[in-house]
Amino acid sequence: MIQHLLSAADLDAAAATLILDTATEMAAMADRDVKKLPTLRGRTVVNLFYEDSTRTRISFEAAAKRLSADVINFSAKGSSVSKGESLKDTALTLQAMGADAVVIRHPASGAPHRLANWIAGSVLNAGDGTHEHPTQALLDAYTLRSRLGRIAGRHVAIVGDVLHSRVARSNVLLLNTLGAKVTLVAPPTLVPVGVGAWPAGVSFDLDAVLPDVDAVMMLRVQKERMGEAYFPSAREYSRRYGLDGQRMRRLPEHAIVMHPGPMNRGMEITPEVADSARSTIVEQVANGVAVRMAALYHMLGSVK
Amino acid sequence: MIQHLLSAADLDAAAATLILDTATEMAAMADRDVKKLPTLRGRTVVNLFYEDSTRTRISFEAAAKRLSADVINFSAKGSSVSKGESLKDTALTLQAMGADAVVIRHPASGAPHRLANWIAGSVLNAGDGTHEHPTQALLDAYTLRSRLGRIAGRHVAIVGDVLHSRVARSNVLLLNTLGAKVTLVAPPTLVPVGVGAWPAGVSFDLDAVLPDVDAVMMLRVQKERMGEAYFPSAREYSRRYGLDGQRMRRLPEHAIVMHPGPMNRGMEITPEVADSARSTIVEQVANGVAVRMAALYHMLGSVK
Amino acid sequence: MIQHLLSAADLDAAAATLILDTATEMAAMADRDVKKLPTLRGRTVVNLFYEDSTRTRISFEAAAKRLSADVINFSAKGSSVSKGESLKDTALTLQAMGADAVVIRHPASGAPHRLANWIAGSVLNAGDGTHEHPTQALLDAYTLRSRLGRIAGRHVAIVGDVLHSRVARSNVLLLNTLGAKVTLVAPPTLVPVGVGAWPAGVSFDLDAVLPDVDAVMMLRVQKERMGEAYFPSAREYSRRYGLDGQRMRRLPEHAIVMHPGPMNRGMEITPEVADSARSTIVEQVANGVAVRMAALYHMLGSVK
Repeated sequence: MIQHLLSAADLDAAAATLILDTATEMAAMADRDVKKLPTLRGRTVVNLFYEDSTRTRISFEAAAKRLSADVINFSAKGSSVSKGESLKDTALTLQAMGADAVVIRHPASGAPHRLANWIAGSVLNAGDGTHEHPTQALLDAYTLRSRLGRIAGRHVAIVGDVLHSRVARSNVLLLNTLGAKVTLVAPPTLVPVGVGAWPAGVSFDLDAVLPDVDAVMMLRVQKERMGEAYFPSAREYSRRYGLDGQRMRRLPEHAIVMHPGPMNRGMEITPEVADSARSTIVEQVANGVAVRMAALYHMLGSVK
Repeated sequence: MIQHLLSAADLDAAAATLILDTATEMAAMADRDVKKLPTLRGRTVVNLFYEDSTRTRISFEAAAKRLSADVINFSAKGSSVSKGESLKDTALTLQAMGADAVVIRHPASGAPHRLANWIAGSVLNAGDGTHEHPTQALLDAYTLRSRLGRIAGRHVAIVGDVLHSRVARSNVLLLNTLGAKVTLVAPPTLVPVGVGAWPAGVSFDLDAVLPDVDAVMMLRVQKERMGEAYFPSAREYSRRYGLDGQRMRRLPEHAIVMHPGPMNRGMEITPEVADSARSTIVEQVANGVAVRMAALYHMLGSVK
Repeated sequence: MIQHLLSAADLDAAAATLILDTATEMAAMADRDVKKLPTLRGRTVVNLFYEDSTRTRISFEAAAKRLSADVINFSAKGSSVSKGESLKDTALTLQAMGADAVVIRHPASGAPHRLANWIAGSVLNAGDGTHEHPTQALLDAYTLRSRLGRIAGRHVAIVGDVLHSRVARSNVLLLNTLGAKVTLVAPPTLVPVGVGAWPAGVSFDLDAVLPDVDAVMMLRVQKERMGEAYFPSAREYSRRYGLDGQRMRRLPEHAIVMHPGPMNRGMEITPEVADSARSTIVEQVANGVAVRMAALYHMLGSVK
């Protein structure tokens, strides 16, 4: 199958569907209490994290361990990186140590692509700058499919700080591949300049969009961007782009509410919404492990 | 058996004795070089540490790995917590990722109890604020039983900063459950206000208590509290409540000296005492692994 | 075989050769995709790191896991150490928890030797202050042997900040044991005072030495020492003791270029040299895992 998973665009509809189908099997096995598979015994997965992200790191770690891989965590804080080692030398080092897969989180957009030039094994992008986060898009697609039955023809709104969101970017790409319609809802200052080229519509009016969607995906607000040029204030943001109970009731009966976590409860989403029956937030986390197992399985499992 | 281990009070005499008996078997197997048991294969134990405690974290990690569980370490420093994620969302995340047990160390008293509301698996309190540290009480009980033959009817002095000590609190509860007599020895400013309700006597005079006890448990002094309202100076503390060789010789022949570690050698205990034949300090550490294996075994081993 | 590996001087020629031969077998098995051996199942290896060194820690972790040992990482930052626990108490704690081997990196020269007094298992020195780094010397010897066929009679130049280098010290000892000739090349301020007693020649002129050697080992420059009493400037250092393409061409045809990593590209070595066919830098990393597997195997594998 594919060697690297750097961008949601690396997956055509067949490849993405294969991963989702495999994830379904992984989840079914976990439900039957088959929690440990021998598939990746003897393989080494390195979690190379240049940014803190316990949630994503743990999800990949749990996924790899359930497939019986050895996992080595490498937090770039306090590493040779702080002694000035280049990404290339780090890559060659991990390669030489026999890493079969490197899961990388990096603040610079494009770092995983550069890494893939130097790694004979597989590279999985676990979030690079404001660029992409393809396994997040996969777990969101999995959640949509499992809750709504199918993805093709569905309408998904992605709401909030689209400009800085790798989650938005990867979701737009993958949802388009899988035949969904996407509408980005954001304040004008938080819409990317080249958005016209994205396979998605744009709206500034959340209330107008909600009645038409099958799912609304709330993005995490970076509080430090509030009060800057991007947006006047947190209160104003919350009033116009936050999802509260009243606004949620504008959604069609069957529509679901998603969030990649961690949430700012009270900012982009109220506790009433986050804990409601429409919310798939906890499911998304569980689906993340299944989807990452499936990705690792297809990327490493068939290699001799 | 029990689902959670949040407080030493969760254990009645039968449950505590069952854990101690199982720990004895675990220790006997380790002595016969049976170091790895398959009991928890496929189970995931998460160490969720909001405070540094390498000693306790490693003990739980070693215990879980000897039972063949997968262990995921989650230091809350540099995690989503620093992005403002609530304990509840962290709990739901770990739950969704399939954690079968969460071992939590937290600076806030009661945090493990709150966590237990959101976790379908087991929660083990590895120390919460100044509140409790039940597995420490279990390993101390194990040590007492193994050194003195029985716990019921024994007299144990707990000496030092009782006010801030979760170790003292959990030990008082468990030792009382198991039929021992406890005397707290502390300067008046370091005795909790409601101590009258504790099943323990109180004394301010260490020398008077020592000749009557079967075991003396020295608490770690938080140096930063010396020189404050709590106590005039480290030297004065050491003179009145520290255990040196001369004072140790006031103990009955068979009495033992305990300390939960890490010690301040020269403060609450002198090197002569810490390294003497009466000292069980190193044994306590070894017993900690056996006791935690036993607790995990009973809490997770029988779950399907 | 040996219990501890504290200094390269702990190994006579027979013991060192046995480790190198075993490492060759380990590497051959990895090449045949036999990545996991059951040898150390049930053994616990603790990585006790008082200094950051992701590269060395990961190498030991990968080596131990391929032998099926359980690995516990213990970074002394934010540990009981910061609460003032002594090395002795840390040692007794790890001992009591059943550590079969402790891999220690420590800023103080001699710390691993002190640790070995209190540990019934094995202690492996992973770098202590400016003193020694014996597994680095082993992996360098392995690399020399595999590239040059034999070590005895070969001439190796070690170039740079010899004064502060544990890599230099361990290599001088081991290469001498294995019959190689060593020349230290360094500015006068970076040659140790007692160097007359070392089994190695000294030169201040890199260009004069290069045509005569079979291998040149470039040491990492500690940038923070530049501009101090040790050396006038980074540029001047690089001009006189750095290895660039022109200088590399003074080497005999068969000679190799080594570096323990992480490199300062452009300082002690140029990218042209680092990435040339003569460079063994990436091989050294791969050999590090094989050599550490071999050392752990001989130190722990035969213990009951």
